[in-house]
Amino acid sequence: MSASIGNKILAAGTKIVAVGRNYAAHAIELGNAVPKEPMIFLKPTSSYVFQGGAIEIPPPLTSLHHEVELGVVIGKKGRDIFEDEAMDHVSGYALALDMTARDIQTVAKAKGHPWTVAKGYDTFTPISGFISKDEVPSTDNLELWCEVDGVMKQKGSTKDMIFSIPLLISYISRVMTLNEGDVILTGTPSGVGPVTAGQHVKAGITGLVEMSFPNPDGVM
Amino acid sequence: MSASIGNKILAAGTKIVAVGRNYAAHAIELGNAVPKEPMIFLKPTSSYVFQGGAIEIPPPLTSLHHEVELGVVIGKKGRDIFEDEAMDHVSGYALALDMTARDIQTVAKAKGHPWTVAKGYDTFTPISGFISKDEVPSTDNLELWCEVDGVMKQKGSTKDMIFSIPLLISYISRVMTLNEGDVILTGTPSGVGPVTAGQHVKAGITGLVEMSFPNPDGVM
Ligand SMILES: [Mg+2]
Ligand SMILES: [Mg+2]
Ligand SMILES: [Mg+2]
Repeated sequence: MSASIGNKILAAGTKIVAVGRNYAAHAIELGNAVPKEPMIFLKPTSSYVFQGGAIEIPPPLTSLHHEVELGVVIGKKGRDIFEDEAMDHVSGYALALDMTARDIQTVAKAKGHPWTVAKGYDTFTPISGFISKDEVPSTDNLELWCEVDGVMKQKGSTKDMIFSIPLLISYISRVMTLNEGDVILTGTPSGVGPVTAGQHVKAGITGLVEMSFPNPDGVM
Repeated sequence: MSASIGNKILAAGTKIVAVGRNYAAHAIELGNAVPKEPMIFLKPTSSYVFQGGAIEIPPPLTSLHHEVELGVVIGKKGRDIFEDEAMDHVSGYALALDMTARDIQTVAKAKGHPWTVAKGYDTFTPISGFISKDEVPSTDNLELWCEVDGVMKQKGSTKDMIFSIPLLISYISRVMTLNEGDVILTGTPSGVGPVTAGQHVKAGITGLVEMSFPNPDGVM
């Protein structure tokens, strides 16, 4: 599938299903237990920002964190998908940042409130262009990285995912139908941390894609 | 705006933003504090079910609750919307049920986990056809009701909303851009309770709309 068709599919998507704590080292760095089943949450597609845009820090936010993640782009609608058929529903991938207002999330968690505001602001899902499945022979050992102002903050491999991509697709589709263009964010490796006004965020999948987001004034 | 155009807009929406605890009596019935600012969460549009469909009870769910709510349908994209301009962004309304897996939600709240699974299953947002804004001179005192097997379970008025529709639109749009077809579920009055396999759920806005969902075998 060509990148331009893929980008149209991505633009037509109606949901982002993100997976929390899918790398043991990241669960532990935030003081959370390693989960026994996938933990999922929704981000709105209004939170996408593409290369050329900027990540905004809504005031009075003081702890906006980067979480670099592999995004899986759904190409074929499905419900109750079996693990061994899951990859037939994938058209490709994208690199994404699951930007998180950690201060707001911490309060929400303590109160048992939804995570929606902490995860849902406009520009909280920087995302690369579409990468066709053909270009990615295997997702078993993709290196994900994220740099802030030239300093490497996250570097991890998809080999350390707790729940595999087919398992995630199967699990999510038993809750909610996955539609063409929907994106699954598969969790972040360790090293998450703050991005402040004026900093520059770069992220990549080694050998596949790189993206760069200036964050000029940090205020929307 | 005609109902058929409105239904198309609804079908093109990319998110459902639901408001929790927007009626004091309902907050209290679940043992929650009355909120000082809106509490919002996302439901996927894949959870819509229209008249003619059925509400499904995913096994092994034992406490699927009905929450009857007024849905506000966005007709014009907006971000950082002022309260006094908010109604210009509304094209109409719909009656909705915010079906909730209360057992799953209770565990999620206790653990500080997202509400996504508890709120997001397929068929967890039964919704009426589109009701044009022209047909609703005022939303100040609409009577919402919900019956299970002919027994009235919820009957309340939008006059008891804690946060008004313009305030909700303004608040949400300061977090995330609202797009045409997006729906805001404005919270439920008291009287929420379980729906079990084989029961029949009816709901309405008095004088405006009624909808009916059989729940034949309760298992998807
Ligand atoms: Mg099923
Ligand atoms: Mg994440
Ligand atoms: Mg509700």
